[in-house]
Parts: sequence; C-alpha cells; structure tokens
Amino acid sequence: MRHIFLLLTVFLPSLVFSQSSDEDALYIKNIHDYALTKAECHENLRHICKEIGPRLSGSASYESAAVFCKNALNKIGVDTTILQPCTVQSWIRGNNEKLTIHFGKNQSQELNMLSLGHSTGTPEKGISAEIIEVQNLDEVKAIGKEGIAGKIVFYNRPMDPTQTNTFRAYGGAVDQRVYGASIAAEFGALASITRSMTVNKDDWPHTGTLFYRSEFPKIPGVAISTNDADLLSKKLKKEKVTAKLITQSRDGAEIVNHSVIGEIRGSEFPNEIILVGGHLDSWDVGEGAHDDGTGVVQSMEVLHLLKGIGYKPKRTIRCVLFANEESGLAGGTEYAKVSNEKNEFHLAAIESDSGGFIPKAFNFEGDTSTFKTRYQKVSEWAEIFEAYGILFGNGGSGADIGPLKDQKGLLIGLKPDTQRYFDYHHTNADVFEAVNKRELELGAAAMASLVYLIDKHGL
Amino acid sequence: MRHIFLLLTVFLPSLVFSQSSDEDALYIKNIHDYALTKAECHENLRHICKEIGPRLSGSASYESAAVFCKNALNKIGVDTTILQPCTVQSWIRGNNEKLTIHFGKNQSQELNMLSLGHSTGTPEKGISAEIIEVQNLDEVKAIGKEGIAGKIVFYNRPMDPTQTNTFRAYGGAVDQRVYGASIAAEFGALASITRSMTVNKDDWPHTGTLFYRSEFPKIPGVAISTNDADLLSKKLKKEKVTAKLITQSRDGAEIVNHSVIGEIRGSEFPNEIILVGGHLDSWDVGEGAHDDGTGVVQSMEVLHLLKGIGYKPKRTIRCVLFANEESGLAGGTEYAKVSNEKNEFHLAAIESDSGGFIPKAFNFEGDTSTFKTRYQKVSEWAEIFEAYGILFGNGGSGADIGPLKDQKGLLIGLKPDTQRYFDYHHTNADVFEAVNKRELELGAAAMASLVYLIDKHGL
Repeated sequence: MRHIFLLLTVFLPSLVFSQSSDEDALYIKNIHDYALTKAECHENLRHICKEIGPRLSGSASYESAAVFCKNALNKIGVDTTILQPCTVQSWIRGNNEKLTIHFGKNQSQELNMLSLGHSTGTPEKGISAEIIEVQNLDEVKAIGKEGIAGKIVFYNRPMDPTQTNTFRAYGGAVDQRVYGASIAAEFGALASITRSMTVNKDDWPHTGTLFYRSEFPKIPGVAISTNDADLLSKKLKKEKVTAKLITQSRDGAEIVNHSVIGEIRGSEFPNEIILVGGHLDSWDVGEGAHDDGTGVVQSMEVLHLLKGIGYKPKRTIRCVLFANEESGLAGGTEYAKVSNEKNEFHLAAIESDSGGFIPKAFNFEGDTSTFKTRYQKVSEWAEIFEAYGILFGNGGSGADIGPLKDQKGLLIGLKPDTQRYFDYHHTNADVFEAVNKRELELGAAAMASLVYLIDKHGL
Repeated sequence: MRHIFLLLTVFLPSLVFSQSSDEDALYIKNIHDYALTKAECHENLRHICKEIGPRLSGSASYESAAVFCKNALNKIGVDTTILQPCTVQSWIRGNNEKLTIHFGKNQSQELNMLSLGHSTGTPEKGISAEIIEVQNLDEVKAIGKEGIAGKIVFYNRPMDPTQTNTFRAYGGAVDQRVYGASIAAEFGALASITRSMTVNKDDWPHTGTLFYRSEFPKIPGVAISTNDADLLSKKLKKEKVTAKLITQSRDGAEIVNHSVIGEIRGSEFPNEIILVGGHLDSWDVGEGAHDDGTGVVQSMEVLHLLKGIGYKPKRTIRCVLFANEESGLAGGTEYAKVSNEKNEFHLAAIESDSGGFIPKAFNFEGDTSTFKTRYQKVSEWAEIFEAYGILFGNGGSGADIGPLKDQKGLLIGLKPDTQRYFDYHHTNADVFEAVNKRELELGAAAMASLVYLIDKHGL
C-alpha cells in the first residue's frame, strides 16, 4: 500500500450527528483524542502483567495487584478507594503435571496439557488407563458404565469454526470442560481429558474451571492442545491407546481476597451509580492479559479519561475490579450483596471482559420492567458510536455485573472483535505483548464515551 | 471470561434478510463456512512468506512467487492462467547501511534505520554533516539555503495518533518520506532522515518509496524508528548533533516482472469481467505478509471458494496479482493498457491492499457517469454484509485497479480494521506470524460474497 491519495472515508468519525448535540460529539472526540495520546491503560497493563504476573484467586500476586490498582486509582485523583473483602476458594496446580500416551509396541508421547481449574489431582503414582473418545456428554451416558468404568474419557468435540462469533463456538463446546469430569465419574471413569477451547489448531492447552457435582466422585480433569487432540483421535481410530496421567492439583484453604473500588462522587445525583468494571483475577498461566487485565485497565482508564478532559460527573462514576470471576464469582456476588444492603442503585453497569481487541459493539440487557425504556434512550446515541465502528445490540453483558440485575439498571457489555480471543484465553500465550495499545485505548474511550452520555442525559 | 450462558447475539449473521433473497443469504453463509474450514489462503501465505520471502520488484524471489501463484491458480482449477510481463525499475539496498549520530564530548549512537526505496546511496566513505530538524516540507523552504545547505534534514512530524483511521494519519505525514529528500536537496542538503510512518513508539524503521524530482540533485533518504526519532529530537533541543550516514542503495537495471492472471470464464456474459486482486511485490524487508501477501492469497482464495461451493459464474471472475505496486505501479498500468487494447470491460474490480485484518468495510468509487446507479444497486446488499460486521462507504479502492477507472466499472477496496497495519507496514516485522488465520479467511469470504452477488445480479 503505497498511494497517499487513496484515503479511506468510511470510518472517520464525523462531527455532525443528527440526533445528538454538537457538544456531545465534541466531548466524545475529546475523550478519544485523550485516550489515543495520554491514556495510561497500556502502561498499567504492562505493570499488572509483567511486574505482577498471573493473579490466581487466593494467591499473593492477586492481592499485590489489588493494592497496585487501588494506588493507581488514587493517583488518578478519584474521591474514594476501598478494598472490599470476599472469601474465595484457593486452588493449587502443583509443579509436575504430566500426561503421556502409550500406544503401538512400547511407543509413547507426552501431550501438551494443563489441569483444569479446581480439578483434583491424581494419586501420587498417577492414573494409568485406556482412553475412550467421545464427542459429547450424552455419548458418555449412552455408552454407560460398561464402556466407561475404569477408563479415561476423552472429550473431543471441537468449537464450531463456522461461527463468526467465536464466543458462540465456545458456548457450544465448553460443557465438555465444565461438566465432563463429573459426567464421566458418574459412569466410573478414572479421569477426563478435554480438547482445548479454541477454534485454532495449535499446541496451547487451555485451562478453565470445571464443576464437580457433589453426588459423584471427584476425578481429575485436564485439557490438551487441539493439535494433540487431533493426534490422539487419529491414533484411537487405529489402535488402543492408554494414558498415564500425573497431576498434583488440589483445592487449598478459603482465603480473603479483595475487589477494588474507586469512585468519583456525582455532583447532582450522587446516589445514581454508573459502574465500569472488569475482573482482576486470572488463571495461573500466562499473564491474564486479555482475560481480564485489559478490562481492569480500561475500567480504571475511564475515570482517568473523564478527569483528563475535565468532565465533572453529575452521577457517581464507580470503577470496580472484581475478585474471583474465574472460579466462583465471589467478588461480583459480594459486591451486589453489599450494594443491596446499602440500598444503592446502579443506573448502569458496563463490564469489559471479552478481551482488549478493537471494540465493535455494546451489548445491553436488564430487568424486563425497565429495559425497553432505557434501551430506547441509549439507542438515540447509536449513531455517534457507529461513526467509531461500534454497534448497539441486545445480549449478555458480563458475569461480574450480572448479580446487579435486581437493581433494575441497564447492564452493558463492551464487545470487541472476537476472532483472536481464543488464541490466548486461559493459556500461557495470554501475555502483555498480545495486546495492541490502540485497540486497548479505543475500548476504554468507547466505555468512557458511553459513561459520559449516560451521566449527562440520564436513562 | 468464564460464564457459558452469557453469549453474544449481536454479530451472529442472521439468515433472514429483508432486501435479499434467502438463496443469496444461504450462498453467503456457505462461502463463509467454507472459508473458515477449507480455505487454503493461510497455507498459501505461509508458502509465500516463509518459503519465498520478500518479493522486491526486479528480484528473483518476485518471479518465484509469480510462478508459485500461477501454479496455485491452476491447482484451483481455473480455466486459464497467464503471466503478464511489465518492465520494472529494480533497486538494490546494499548490505551495510548505517546511521550513527555524534553528540556531546565524543559520544555516539547508532540508530535503527532503513534506506527508503529508490534512494541513491552515499559516497563510499559516507556523508558526515550536522542534523537540522524540521516538521514539514514548507519549513525547509522557509529556512532556505542558508540554514539547509551542507546539512542533513531530519523530518520529524509524527503521524497524528488521534486519527481513528490510521491510513488518514499516514496520508497526513507521508509527504515527508516521499518528497522530503528532493525538497531538502533543492536547498543544498546532503541527505534526509525521516521519522518512520507509524503511530507507535517502537524500534522498527519503516521503508517505503521516495520520489526524486528531476530538477534537483539526488540525495540519500533514510527512515529511522520513532523511538530513535524522539531520542534524536531530544538531543537536538540541547546540543549540536552530527550524523555519519553510509548507504549503498542504488537503482539497478530495468527488468521484466510478471503479473499473474487466472480466470474462471463466465457462462453467460464472459465479456463482463469481475476482478479480484492484490499486489505480489513487496519491499525487501520482512516477508511482505500484510503488504500485500494477504491481498494476494485472499484474491486467489475467492476463486477457490467459488469453486469449492460449486458456484458456476455467469460472468468472468478474474484474479490478478499485480507486479510493482510499491515502486512504480508498472503491473497495474500495463494490465489496464492491455485490457483497453483488447476492448475488455471490467464491470467491477475489488482490491485487497490494506492488510489481512478483520474486514470492516468495502469502499466504492467509479466514474461519475455510472457510479451513482451502480452504487445504488450494491447498496441493496449492504444489510447482508452488516450482519458480518462489514459496512459500505464511498472512498478509495486500490492503487493497482485505479487505472481501470476509464472502463467505467465499479472500483472496490476491501477495508479491514486499521489499528495494527502500521505496526508492520514496510518493516522487518511484517511476517507471516503477524497474520491471524480467521481474520484473513473472513476477508476472503467477504470478497467472494460480493463477487457472488455482483455476478448473480449484475450491476
């Protein structure tokens, strides 16, 4: 691409909007200009990822990150910051997990694997058993005890690559990871192996939580990379394959973690809260960059941007960095509980927890009694966001703000493009370098723009 | 992001369209499904980048790439393939270019630099001179001979980071790279240094073409990384800085290169051509992945996708991989000349030359006599593409297809998101690994979908 005269016109945000005032358009342009020149979110993300690292619930590094973010919010100059305690179930991976398959005449191969979050470990000497491949939970039930007992169940249904929204593909496959171990245990399996949750063919195993059903024995659950899942499946088509699995993972103590809360108090309607948030915990692999370091630093950036352009909010703008989204939602649950006890009202809550990629949409949801009216109101601003390539739609917002639904405000999710999310999700590849500075900043600017409009015009 | 029930709805392509038939929607869904499961573009890109490498005009590797692509088109099963010759001005960088600045008491530092394309070299012993910083071409004229003669002019106006479309920021700064050397030479400068064309602060120098005006002496022109430009500017604010520049770059012989053409002959209106294309040449650094390996493999993929879903076009679908876009446009110029001599008619031409990122828009342009009617016709399909996150707009299409404008067809540019393009453009960082497989495939699917609609319904 050489030519200097062939410039694009389609995405240039116009300063002329039919349904919103010139003042709004100017404020939103200012927010974007500030974000693309003076934002601190990329540097904050670097600190969280590189200086602190992964932030597993219950870990010391989680609490270090909480302290760093509280201090960062104070530096922004918000009115108050607090650390809100909640109790989380800690989990330890252990250092020497290993999965080796044996086949043919004394041949063997080690696979790229990770124990799933909250999985129990194997006995010290490991588990050795034949592998049986299935495509879904129902297939285990159909095969029944006779075929399953004493074996290791290998769930190998891929995420559907034809879903242009990769979160839909995730939703269509993740039941294997979440419930696979317990369903297999119901029929006597010794362990479960799940194909990693990604549409790619690569060597990264993806961890993520599993849920044990209390009525069945707890058996170890692990994930293997998609390349290794294909390899294993190919071998199983022609011969018997056994696995030796050794893991040390186990639940630890219940520990107090802290969500981080910082707010700018509203000048006219301080009791109407507009929340921006993400979750501060991550899995123990990688650096928790896209999940959800980006949501954390974007949420802090919203307050920094509003301060930076000199905007004085009428309503209370509150940044909440939730503890324990990945494995229990203790932070989000506790936050809503305390908020309800104080009779607080969240007029709106925006969560960023879909990666720090180029923002493409806001999803809106809420209690049916108020949703239609509020959505009609925000729809008047859709044109402003379209000029920045962002569309409005109905749909899920975010896990941490979900418990606020009873307050009957508007729940909103920032939805970036989804193509690259599962390149990194819950893997060692989810590191600072995987985040593009401008994409991150544009997401923060979009959130700040929506906060500005809701604050100024109400809902 | 853990929750499995909070799924997005906003981007799911709906199968219900108000203004287009169900059959069209189904074909386009098929095209996308095929692209996301059976496309060969990612593997073709790997070959072009990793097995062949950069494809500088006039180089042997350029011609290797042309042969590879012709063979790949034959494997797809198109009706005819040809190599179309054109004459290009070759250029050689040389192996030991180096820029060192000297300042303070015998201090010095080497900067990250690249000679600009078609720059002349320094004398063997190099050029040593004081550096003078300017922000634009006019400043050189204002300073005049007295301040410029005998010095090295350093153009340091950054691309405007507040442009949300980075191509606009590029358009606002690239005159320094293109014309800077000649303007400096007019006033007696010995060489020019340009701040690299990127909105980032990093260590990559970005090459790209310069144009010499024949009335002034040819002086060397080089680019330095933005980090080094900031460093140099800071030093110049407090002290005198001299540079020693040694480069060996020079124009070589005029050489015949070949554009690659492959087509599926139309069954009803073979004389109406729908072109898809990109340019096969690149600069000599990196692997020419996003510029424009992605456009090349996407264009070939369009034919593969249409074949793959079993679509028999009524019109002639032609893939053209142009030679010499980066430094003369000889391929595009020759192609239009030959086409005009044959009295051909291009009903539409689509170019992909803005990187292989997530597709966000098609830009349309054309001769004023026919544009309005044709644009009205394509606008009927806008809703289909919106469901895939792609908007329609007026604007520049592509450099190589520009010379076809006289045929009065519709000229179309595929416009992906622009945030990451200048992370890679004309640098050693523009490699295969910088391209996301699904983003690449979705761009090809978007092009194929538009070709299908134009072919089926005409314009």
